[in-house]
Amino acid sequence: MAMMTGEQYEASLRKLNLQVYQFGKKVENVVDDPIIRPSMNAVKLTYELAHQPEYEDLMTATSHISGKKINRFTHIHQSTDDLVKKTKMGRLLGSLTGCCFQRCVGMDAMNALSIVTYDIDQKLGTEYNKRFLKYLAYVQENDLTCDGAMTDPKGDRSLPPHKQPDPDMFLHVVEEKEDGIVVRGAKAHQTGAVNSHEIIVMPTISMREGDADYAVSFALPADADGITYIMGRQSCDTRKLEAGTIDRGNQLFGGHEALVVFDNVFVPWERVFMYKEFEFAGQLVENFASYHRQSYACKAGVGDVLIGAAQTIAEYNGAARASHVKDKIIEMNHLNETLFCGSVACACEGGKQPSGTYLVSTLLANVCKQNVTRFPYEISRLAQDIAGGLMVTLPSEDDFKSPEVGEWLTKYYKTCEGISTENRNRILRLIENITLGTAAVGYLTESMHGAGSPQAQRIMISRQVNMAQKQKVAKQLCGIKEED
Amino acid sequence: MAMMTGEQYEASLRKLNLQVYQFGKKVENVVDDPIIRPSMNAVKLTYELAHQPEYEDLMTATSHISGKKINRFTHIHQSTDDLVKKTKMGRLLGSLTGCCFQRCVGMDAMNALSIVTYDIDQKLGTEYNKRFLKYLAYVQENDLTCDGAMTDPKGDRSLPPHKQPDPDMFLHVVEEKEDGIVVRGAKAHQTGAVNSHEIIVMPTISMREGDADYAVSFALPADADGITYIMGRQSCDTRKLEAGTIDRGNQLFGGHEALVVFDNVFVPWERVFMYKEFEFAGQLVENFASYHRQSYACKAGVGDVLIGAAQTIAEYNGAARASHVKDKIIEMNHLNETLFCGSVACACEGGKQPSGTYLVSTLLANVCKQNVTRFPYEISRLAQDIAGGLMVTLPSEDDFKSPEVGEWLTKYYKTCEGISTENRNRILRLIENITLGTAAVGYLTESMHGAGSPQAQRIMISRQVNMAQKQKVAKQLCGIKEED
Amino acid sequence: MAMMTGEQYEASLRKLNLQVYQFGKKVENVVDDPIIRPSMNAVKLTYELAHQPEYEDLMTATSHISGKKINRFTHIHQSTDDLVKKTKMGRLLGSLTGCCFQRCVGMDAMNALSIVTYDIDQKLGTEYNKRFLKYLAYVQENDLTCDGAMTDPKGDRSLPPHKQPDPDMFLHVVEEKEDGIVVRGAKAHQTGAVNSHEIIVMPTISMREGDADYAVSFALPADADGITYIMGRQSCDTRKLEAGTIDRGNQLFGGHEALVVFDNVFVPWERVFMYKEFEFAGQLVENFASYHRQSYACKAGVGDVLIGAAQTIAEYNGAARASHVKDKIIEMNHLNETLFCGSVACACEGGKQPSGTYLVSTLLANVCKQNVTRFPYEISRLAQDIAGGLMVTLPSEDDFKSPEVGEWLTKYYKTCEGISTENRNRILRLIENITLGTAAVGYLTESMHGAGSPQAQRIMISRQVNMAQKQKVAKQLCGIKEED
Amino acid sequence: MAMMTGEQYEASLRKLNLQVYQFGKKVENVVDDPIIRPSMNAVKLTYELAHQPEYEDLMTATSHISGKKINRFTHIHQSTDDLVKKTKMGRLLGSLTGCCFQRCVGMDAMNALSIVTYDIDQKLGTEYNKRFLKYLAYVQENDLTCDGAMTDPKGDRSLPPHKQPDPDMFLHVVEEKEDGIVVRGAKAHQTGAVNSHEIIVMPTISMREGDADYAVSFALPADADGITYIMGRQSCDTRKLEAGTIDRGNQLFGGHEALVVFDNVFVPWERVFMYKEFEFAGQLVENFASYHRQSYACKAGVGDVLIGAAQTIAEYNGAARASHVKDKIIEMNHLNETLFCGSVACACEGGKQPSGTYLVSTLLANVCKQNVTRFPYEISRLAQDIAGGLMVTLPSEDDFKSPEVGEWLTKYYKTCEGISTENRNRILRLIENITLGTAAVGYLTESMHGAGSPQAQRIMISRQVNMAQKQKVAKQLCGIKEED
Repeated sequence: MAMMTGEQYEASLRKLNLQVYQFGKKVENVVDDPIIRPSMNAVKLTYELAHQPEYEDLMTATSHISGKKINRFTHIHQSTDDLVKKTKMGRLLGSLTGCCFQRCVGMDAMNALSIVTYDIDQKLGTEYNKRFLKYLAYVQENDLTCDGAMTDPKGDRSLPPHKQPDPDMFLHVVEEKEDGIVVRGAKAHQTGAVNSHEIIVMPTISMREGDADYAVSFALPADADGITYIMGRQSCDTRKLEAGTIDRGNQLFGGHEALVVFDNVFVPWERVFMYKEFEFAGQLVENFASYHRQSYACKAGVGDVLIGAAQTIAEYNGAARASHVKDKIIEMNHLNETLFCGSVACACEGGKQPSGTYLVSTLLANVCKQNVTRFPYEISRLAQDIAGGLMVTLPSEDDFKSPEVGEWLTKYYKTCEGISTENRNRILRLIENITLGTAAVGYLTESMHGAGSPQAQRIMISRQVNMAQKQKVAKQLCGIKEED
Repeated sequence: MAMMTGEQYEASLRKLNLQVYQFGKKVENVVDDPIIRPSMNAVKLTYELAHQPEYEDLMTATSHISGKKINRFTHIHQSTDDLVKKTKMGRLLGSLTGCCFQRCVGMDAMNALSIVTYDIDQKLGTEYNKRFLKYLAYVQENDLTCDGAMTDPKGDRSLPPHKQPDPDMFLHVVEEKEDGIVVRGAKAHQTGAVNSHEIIVMPTISMREGDADYAVSFALPADADGITYIMGRQSCDTRKLEAGTIDRGNQLFGGHEALVVFDNVFVPWERVFMYKEFEFAGQLVENFASYHRQSYACKAGVGDVLIGAAQTIAEYNGAARASHVKDKIIEMNHLNETLFCGSVACACEGGKQPSGTYLVSTLLANVCKQNVTRFPYEISRLAQDIAGGLMVTLPSEDDFKSPEVGEWLTKYYKTCEGISTENRNRILRLIENITLGTAAVGYLTESMHGAGSPQAQRIMISRQVNMAQKQKVAKQLCGIKEED
Repeated sequence: MAMMTGEQYEASLRKLNLQVYQFGKKVENVVDDPIIRPSMNAVKLTYELAHQPEYEDLMTATSHISGKKINRFTHIHQSTDDLVKKTKMGRLLGSLTGCCFQRCVGMDAMNALSIVTYDIDQKLGTEYNKRFLKYLAYVQENDLTCDGAMTDPKGDRSLPPHKQPDPDMFLHVVEEKEDGIVVRGAKAHQTGAVNSHEIIVMPTISMREGDADYAVSFALPADADGITYIMGRQSCDTRKLEAGTIDRGNQLFGGHEALVVFDNVFVPWERVFMYKEFEFAGQLVENFASYHRQSYACKAGVGDVLIGAAQTIAEYNGAARASHVKDKIIEMNHLNETLFCGSVACACEGGKQPSGTYLVSTLLANVCKQNVTRFPYEISRLAQDIAGGLMVTLPSEDDFKSPEVGEWLTKYYKTCEGISTENRNRILRLIENITLGTAAVGYLTESMHGAGSPQAQRIMISRQVNMAQKQKVAKQLCGIKEED
Repeated sequence: MAMMTGEQYEASLRKLNLQVYQFGKKVENVVDDPIIRPSMNAVKLTYELAHQPEYEDLMTATSHISGKKINRFTHIHQSTDDLVKKTKMGRLLGSLTGCCFQRCVGMDAMNALSIVTYDIDQKLGTEYNKRFLKYLAYVQENDLTCDGAMTDPKGDRSLPPHKQPDPDMFLHVVEEKEDGIVVRGAKAHQTGAVNSHEIIVMPTISMREGDADYAVSFALPADADGITYIMGRQSCDTRKLEAGTIDRGNQLFGGHEALVVFDNVFVPWERVFMYKEFEFAGQLVENFASYHRQSYACKAGVGDVLIGAAQTIAEYNGAARASHVKDKIIEMNHLNETLFCGSVACACEGGKQPSGTYLVSTLLANVCKQNVTRFPYEISRLAQDIAGGLMVTLPSEDDFKSPEVGEWLTKYYKTCEGISTENRNRILRLIENITLGTAAVGYLTESMHGAGSPQAQRIMISRQVNMAQKQKVAKQLCGIKEED
């Protein structure tokens, strides 16, 4: 099959038989569920843009396996140029959807596996890489969306997997069969899970010998027997159920996250990419995390939307020429571009791994993500400053349509000549959406915790800098004889 | 009547005949409306605490008119000690409700009017102060909650009131009668409006001669003929309509804001406190703003709740002893107490006005509020850091109760021994409520824009500092002869 | 004696026979030493202002012992009003000198001792308070400047005093005699030491039983036998030795710090205020630290000078009306006033101790100081932004006077009509002085470390907040039943 | 000639006959002047490293003119890889010298001229590019250090060059001769001027028709007749004149800046690269500024030294394992690497100009530099936090050597076993040097103002972002029909 169109993607989802729960009920039609649908729209855009000539350079790549043009989301990075394009693809999609478009996590998982399966094989003489490449070819050929599933519930954080009172707090092998393995456990915070064809499971932390049963990585169809999805709820989620559309802010796109439960699920051997090689769990986590921290370039894209919205409301309010407003817009752009710089830089400074895959600079990827845990909050604060208090005191769309009070609202919320009150409401609701509503979940809290919480990056920064060299020069410059 | 009890307050509200609209429909029972009710609970607490001995010192005062014990919210500050107690009362209530308790705006309006009506009379030989004191005695005697209504819609911000294409964009007198005046216009962002017995109207900006019809201040019963309230909606507002209670975060308290429309409303002369004295509009705005910027001590109280919640989730997550978590809690406290310092300092540095009323330091009140436009955002960011990503990926209460998936949720969201999954959910929902949900409206966006947007404070800071003295000393110290 | 005049103070210093070393040589004439002299000028101002009617209210107080008017620097605070005046006195002096005026540390030591000597006596039946009050009367009567000496060298920070390889790393008793004790050790970072008549020694940390010999507090004349002062050097110190005056920035005032060595110094019993009561060492440290953290209100005064200088250079550069410059000046003021708020608030929230002395709020004093470790750095950064690069590329005063190149400099450094190039140089040198030069030592680095390094305040903030109450309410609000 | 060695460079400087003034006197031996010498050492290192195999890749390039290996500082960037290597070369040198090494400004001037001379020729049919390339070949062949001179004194900032009361406030042509032109004026803040062989002059602002005489660019030997250098003084400059070496902090390297006066200096036509083409002045300024803002990667190098010093003093103080110290070191690294990311990203995102030269991304170069105006100040603040107060209270080197007090100092400033007091002093003096002393001039104030003050970058950021696209998507997402 060639790359799927958006329509083909949507159709392909309809064929899946996912077990999805939301608000305590089974979701019968996942694709058309009003709360889930906007997130599907966002993934769908990753298919649509790949067919548009102006985005072809960013959205597609040439498979190093088949030599065919593929969607970049299924590509294994073959150069720093590929890495930089990944950064730009992420920002592009964020800037067009104003939300999380979910497909990067599978890409990051596949790239990490392309490195680690190779390294395991080199060291242990296994054949994981061969298996993985066969699986990859299938994904590329069918242009599939994969969920990369890493985060286990973790139970008592002070205990390793095998010491947990409940052995399922980390996903693990419960049975080895001739044709495969049976696993049990759960993966939390799974972004875009129910819009995916496949789910790729990885361990979530470094492991030691006792945890061997937990050192497991594999891929499954999203609707494999025994997998259940339970949707997380988001701020303002039920506004999508309301009759009007203005109050939801973003008319088209959204994100979602789910808890994925694996209840004794069978995985055939050809889809197992790590099996008890606990000593490689840490590397897989670290490589995936580095790739995924780079991926937060998407937040610069969401920032683009929020900046555009802030500029627009400033104009609607008649305040766009006030020097303090202009200065705040500049600050928003400055912070947003600083985020982008981090993602570009870690890509540009990436390097070739033994497998041939290019990996970002681990140090700079962590620096990039660390800024993502800060700047979107400040950008949001500035957006709220510019928006004005009306953003949180605006009556509902129904009030504006009400025969009793609608006219009053239209009268009193008018600003300058030529500015539509409805348009002003719309842009205010978009800013609310990104800074307090459903998109705030992705733009703020997930910027904080996605791809690892801030402290995780700080630890990595600490490990990756060459402190010895810095100290050596400092001592030389002030005349301290290096102690030997 | 003595001070009302909470029950008496609630009963008194039921007697009002308010015209309230929400989601395009008239609210038939305001007091019991599930979205409005939590905000009534918060005001009710201001009545309840006044009867509790441990809070008597903060919550009550002695009327300088009647000599009787009154609720401090109806008191005119007679000393800097009164001002400091006002700060502490605000923090106390914020720390007990975790939200905006709404009653300060009327107190601030009355104190500002006690100064300005006196000053008008002194200059122009009018009798506004006498009228006002009579009205004040009525408020104190009946222990009423007053809405202080200042912010007009303002239309085209580049034009003064009388130049607006629509003359109603600022509330104004449309007719003078023998027994009073008729007014038209609207007041936006009215916090606690539908929980109030009275509404006290003030002009919103400095005015010049052409704006005389707009220079008007008066008080009306909240249910006077011609007044309509249209509720603003808040992030996650409809969660209060859901069957469960966990997902709303704060079980008890909330805030609300409304647009208040005055459609040719009659005001008898005895309730008119400014009438066309445009040259005093600016002073009234400034005095009210100074008092109200002090009032944001309440956000230190909400901060207390958020800090308590952050510490609790840290404990539930088993992370409370991690040095970076402890450090973040300290930073939250540090920022929160810095907010409190600003409110205490502007009170402590307050002074007696010609009317006998004590006014806060205008400079320091603006400094106080300026910090309020910043620190709650950072405190929220840190709270989200500590809370973890689960705060925005947690399934709904209904999922936890679901026979199909509830057990899985309880199993997989368990952390350490002895920690209740439900309690963890509850505290996460409270943090969500304050940082993204209904309370975020008050804790964040209203911290930004309430009592004036940040730029308003910056202008006041610029005007209030004694730059000439600073420059004089700087020049002396470096040997510049002062130019005369 | 009544309060000394500035001249009498200077004369009194000339009578002292201090052992002072600087640049490896003994300073024969301390008072006239060009590097030390500016710091003496600053202390002298504390005497001069006390005689000026406009400053009398802040600079003087009524002794609670003698009932006489005394310099406030020798006063024991008898009310929160006294505490607030102390804050204002500090800011006033900072704003007039642009540097550290050194006399607060003795005041803070005496106030702390007034509390702790009383508490020791109450618990142990000793007579330290009586001794102390007699000494205090002597200080008040003679209007003396006292150095409060707390910080020991501390050696290996991981070891308590009595476990140090060198027993002298903390000052301690080496001999007990009939008429007194003999002590040995040193005190570091002693601000204003060689401008003082007296030195009051206190322990530097909480102590346990083994450290009893180190739990000692006493007062000595500054020129007691066995005391030696070794001056610390400051950035740009030797500019004061240059012929011209412009390049030193501040023409009049400065600060200094010294290491004070006690080489077997005898202390008579009547001047010993703590002797082996190790269990009170911690309280003395904490009370002194709280007072001294309040004292950093002086930095808001230095900030006033820097802001005045920044405004002046903006005017000289013709940039004062640029919106970004005005905004930076506002930000400087905002931060500076926030510092002031902290000091006012901890004073206002102070309370009476059993001894009758008023102590500041420990929590808010620590919050105050924590901000002092941050904001002066940002204020300096903004001042450098406004000043322009010339501040660090300006040729020397001698170049401006040079017959070969002076005219060129005067020509090319001219800005707008009517602006004196020399005056511009002067104000640039003042900004350099405060942000990089001798005054930067006090405004920046000592703001960081004086009265305890930032982490010390964070620990105290952590201890002082009522976390249990915050958690209790948070749990109530979200429906968690308090565990009993 | 091949690339010069360090020794050859130093020898070449000795042959120059520069007119240099400092402290009001002519400097007879520039190379050996103790204040200037450290800056020469830093430039010298750019020659030395080019001969070391491990640095060859960064320090050298292949000339696109001659095809020979040249020092990268004389290279015209032929690819984004060249641009990225420029970034890394800058960081490398900063990390080895701990100061400004001065040679980048000439490289940036030449690259900007390689673009603009080409563009002028294309539009106007002139031959500037040919002239420039010939000159470039000379520079490359002789491996010269060039000073890029842009900043004019500017006089009254509100007036354009030709309206200034003194026509010399911007450098301009005063006479056109057959064989060349005569110029007059001055260039301020000239980093590394007296260590340069050549000086390349460019206009400093965009110009209009009346300013044609000011639109001039050319190159001259540094010792051309009529050029005079007047050295700027730096914080702590005279410590380099002291006998000891510890107190100067950095034993080897430093920077300098000078005012360069052009008093009717003749320039032959073959060295004139712009002559009255005022419409290209703005482009030249902007291209140079973009390159030079990229160059501030060097500050990440200086940051490396400061971080190394902070880690070292933490170890000497026995505090390196305290969690708050580790966290501060991480923060320093994080900010420092964020600076690096900006410089890498603007290089990576650079593009080919019509002349063939690669130019950095203007937007990201400005974002990069904007962060440089902030983060070094915070890194310095953290370094001072870690260093402790001793950094500013430490006695002089002479005191430590003094027979009277040296032993006491050595005794009392000892920390843990095995830590040399002298080494601790040395590292403290290095931190003082970078945060308050001579190197602070470069690390802080010049980070603020070099390559344009912060507001200049903000204006460029505002111009370079695609706001229309951001607004278009924001409107689409919330359902606003784009107005046509």
